[in-house]
Amino acid sequence: MRPCTQPLRSPAMRCEVVAVGTELLLGQIVDTNSAVIGERLAASGIDSYFQVKVGDNLDRATTAVRDALARSDAVIVTGGLGPTHDDLTRNVLAAVMGVELERDEALVDVIRGMFAARGRTMPDNNLLQADVPRGAIVIPQTRGTAPGLICPVESVDADGHPITKVVYAMPGVPHEMAEMLERAVLPDLLARRGGTEAIVSRTLRTWGDSESGLAERLVEPIAELEASHRATIALLASGVEGIKVRVTAKGADTTAARRSVDEVADELRTRLGSIVFAEDDASMESVVLDLLRARQRTLAVAESMTGGMITARLTEVAGASEVVRGGVVSYASEVKWSLLDVPEGPVVSDVAARAMADGVRRLLGADVGLSITGVAGPAPQDDRAPGTVFVGYAIGEVVEAKQLSLFGDRARIRAYATISALDVLRRTLEAEQMA
Amino acid sequence: MRPCTQPLRSPAMRCEVVAVGTELLLGQIVDTNSAVIGERLAASGIDSYFQVKVGDNLDRATTAVRDALARSDAVIVTGGLGPTHDDLTRNVLAAVMGVELERDEALVDVIRGMFAARGRTMPDNNLLQADVPRGAIVIPQTRGTAPGLICPVESVDADGHPITKVVYAMPGVPHEMAEMLERAVLPDLLARRGGTEAIVSRTLRTWGDSESGLAERLVEPIAELEASHRATIALLASGVEGIKVRVTAKGADTTAARRSVDEVADELRTRLGSIVFAEDDASMESVVLDLLRARQRTLAVAESMTGGMITARLTEVAGASEVVRGGVVSYASEVKWSLLDVPEGPVVSDVAARAMADGVRRLLGADVGLSITGVAGPAPQDDRAPGTVFVGYAIGEVVEAKQLSLFGDRARIRAYATISALDVLRRTLEAEQMA
Repeated sequence: MRPCTQPLRSPAMRCEVVAVGTELLLGQIVDTNSAVIGERLAASGIDSYFQVKVGDNLDRATTAVRDALARSDAVIVTGGLGPTHDDLTRNVLAAVMGVELERDEALVDVIRGMFAARGRTMPDNNLLQADVPRGAIVIPQTRGTAPGLICPVESVDADGHPITKVVYAMPGVPHEMAEMLERAVLPDLLARRGGTEAIVSRTLRTWGDSESGLAERLVEPIAELEASHRATIALLASGVEGIKVRVTAKGADTTAARRSVDEVADELRTRLGSIVFAEDDASMESVVLDLLRARQRTLAVAESMTGGMITARLTEVAGASEVVRGGVVSYASEVKWSLLDVPEGPVVSDVAARAMADGVRRLLGADVGLSITGVAGPAPQDDRAPGTVFVGYAIGEVVEAKQLSLFGDRARIRAYATISALDVLRRTLEAEQMA
Repeated sequence: MRPCTQPLRSPAMRCEVVAVGTELLLGQIVDTNSAVIGERLAASGIDSYFQVKVGDNLDRATTAVRDALARSDAVIVTGGLGPTHDDLTRNVLAAVMGVELERDEALVDVIRGMFAARGRTMPDNNLLQADVPRGAIVIPQTRGTAPGLICPVESVDADGHPITKVVYAMPGVPHEMAEMLERAVLPDLLARRGGTEAIVSRTLRTWGDSESGLAERLVEPIAELEASHRATIALLASGVEGIKVRVTAKGADTTAARRSVDEVADELRTRLGSIVFAEDDASMESVVLDLLRARQRTLAVAESMTGGMITARLTEVAGASEVVRGGVVSYASEVKWSLLDVPEGPVVSDVAARAMADGVRRLLGADVGLSITGVAGPAPQDDRAPGTVFVGYAIGEVVEAKQLSLFGDRARIRAYATISALDVLRRTLEAEQMA
């Protein structure tokens, strides 16, 4: 690709995303591409204020791209580059650029070659994928047949000065899109922006406080930061995954931005204390496994109301087998009594939770036992209301249980019970560490 | 809610979707809500031509909703109804309606009551959730604290005649949104559309064929239907949930539409045979539970690579306790040998799968045993490649195992293994029924 000589309005560059495809509007496919692109743009310090889904319709897709380009410096279009007659993105770009489509014979050979390499002959449909708007730059494909496009569009800035905006087209297939984004589109976009400002983020993951409660804890630092502009704080409620506190800072370079982020994040982490269970991509289950692995302890889990969700979550992590011996889903009361030596009697109780934790540890020959028993609903059990939960743990001589009250429907109660039980073990192991 | 008296331009109603939330633009959360809404609108015969994501910014969100409303009859907004200072959707709607926000004291009591019911006092932040644009109708919440809103907006149609358009606001939390969509928003939207033409859909859920394979099986009926216009068929690839075949028909009334749908769906069901495992909202796990319940048989599950996912899925269904005794997650090989009497030796094998199914049935005192052992990856085990899976079952005298080869990363292999194991049991029980 030829280098870009005309930088855009730097540094506050804006780039919108237009995802093309009727199947996206019909909800047959969820548009994950624009989320991936948005994440990479944010990490590059490029603002993305609007992201649009539009169907395979020439007029509406052209309108969507024109409107997006009018509001910003660049637009990234995904989808509509396939070989069928509904794939209209090439025509949309020609319309936006005000040029004709020309068949690129070199591209025809490349595409025909791709089919030949797979021992197939190219259907005539695929010739459409070699049509390029005059003046557009082709981004070669490395995975599929649909090439990408870089389309410069002459425009004027707010002061009426001539400026070159740009529209990128990438295939809608997620892995083809992601590869082309990193290889060709982001580098071209950053070259057009010019400047070297870096942006760094760090995310504190919390469990055990509400979004509004967390907001109140953070009133001071947020106000202080809004005044000082050292960094920004965002609260991201992530349902059963808890609430994320994201700290973001800009800097002359990555080191400078990282320094500001760490200053603020360390301060917040101290202020928030034990509700912070992990950072960035770490999960509750990976933290629990790391705490156990560090002590060379193995784990066994006894589950009733969660029916295996806790053990399933722990074993999502590759390498869990070093720590997790396994578990027992004692769904029926008789299984709790016979297999885990739970004393006969009400099974939604402190006593049962402790016996389950101790029993499963013995049964599976593990160092640590974690257990959960409770009422998922919709019906009550043993006169206990849905949401009544007992989490038990057995570590060395300590065999304890903790009662929780959860709310919501059956699915929500089970999901919250799962992460809550892991959090009880996490806090216990961390407290032990402190002691 | 008051009945709607002013129908909109019927029948070709247009409804756009605006998802509000900076975290959506930053790609920290994927917007699945607009896909769900788009699917439901399509099933209701309502066109959705543009779907937009915009951040927590008053001006830009207001612009997005205004533009969407100018292009269509109705707009559904999701997100931005939370209790924090960046939740601006209430203000956006007031701006679009050209009215003030008024605090709804009745709503304050409801929200305070929700916190009280959870033994907590309401943080002052949550008062914001009781602010309502004058003239808006409140949609009560059944799950969270953020109520929804129905906001009539006076406008004019293409011929300059006065018309009432409408903007709906729903919370961004997917399960809260989905519940409110079905309970309040879709019914209100259909009432405003007016007209009596009914649309009925029926969905056949399939497991065990690829989308292209399914498309080939259906070439004839699809061509025939496109000619006859009796009904439409849509293939919805739903990843680990299989592929859905949705049949939709319009009719003068529900009975007529239902008749056309059933004619076509019954024919397709016969044509597709045993790959159809359920219809509409029924799931693989509910079908398996129904088959066992009908025979008054109980089930025990032994899981290795899936770490509890199968038992967790079965116990998602309320009333599963009538059938499911429980399970053993024999993650470590020693647990398979000691607890389930699996003969010492390679545990990723036909022999181990059969021993696990029979062993868990005996250990938990169940009639039927289901087991799974295999390699989730990323590393091979016992010289077996990731994706090598053995599913075992023990029913009466029959103790068999079936080998599967699955592809993808660890998470995908575990998810496919889970539904595949349930499908093996489903087909076995159905075959038994036929015999």
